[in-house]
Amino acid sequence: MTSSEKCCCSSGNLDPDFAKCGGLLPVVVQDAQSGDVLMMAYMNEEAWQETLKTSRGVFFSRSRQKLWRKGEESGNLQVVTSIYIDCDRDTILLKVDQIGGAACHEGYKSCFFREIAPQCGKIVGERVFDPATVYKK
Amino acid sequence: MTSSEKCCCSSGNLDPDFAKCGGLLPVVVQDAQSGDVLMMAYMNEEAWQETLKTSRGVFFSRSRQKLWRKGEESGNLQVVTSIYIDCDRDTILLKVDQIGGAACHEGYKSCFFREIAPQCGKIVGERVFDPATVYKK
Repeated sequence: MTSSEKCCCSSGNLDPDFAKCGGLLPVVVQDAQSGDVLMMAYMNEEAWQETLKTSRGVFFSRSRQKLWRKGEESGNLQVVTSIYIDCDRDTILLKVDQIGGAACHEGYKSCFFREIAPQCGKIVGERVFDPATVYKK
Repeated sequence: MTSSEKCCCSSGNLDPDFAKCGGLLPVVVQDAQSGDVLMMAYMNEEAWQETLKTSRGVFFSRSRQKLWRKGEESGNLQVVTSIYIDCDRDTILLKVDQIGGAACHEGYKSCFFREIAPQCGKIVGERVFDPATVYKK
């Protein structure tokens, strides 16, 4: 599928509906191998088109207000293996191979490294890298 | 943990930060058994507290602007088995046992029943129920 193609099937248009949510749709990123939910981020239409074109996880950073090519700084980019759209066409699910084994900027595989219930405040992830070394901040 | 308790660990407060995102935080719902991502929804603080108290998936419906006790109409409620918070404390991950085997109002197990890339517009889910029968609309 090229970036300019429209997605459709018998049930109609399957493109993400960027007219919703102020043009920023939530994106769930899941590890294609383990099924772990790695992170949640947002895409605008430009990020979506670049993701389709490059098969890399490209998002829109709300804090920086610009395209965020995941891994551009850490090297931990995401190779997209498949993409799903939800029933309302306003949420995207990416299955990815997570390069470097860590999606979270805090050095964990998943951003959801803390279980808060029924366990209360337990870190369940293991750090893959040390953020101070990788991001040099 | 009771609904009035605060979550914390050595890294500080772990409660969802409802001061962000206009008080509506995205929630990823994952099947505790299969690891399938079932749906994405939103919680306000009231939905969050009720989820903690009842161990059922309770959300805030943006379209109806009120609490949405998942399954209240279809019977397909979600029994929460564990809850995770992300690094920024603005996204919640629920692992659930999905009663009835279908989370999607269109009768599929997951709302992400359509793969759109690299396959283009392929329905990959199987209907568990017929929405016309369940919702009587």
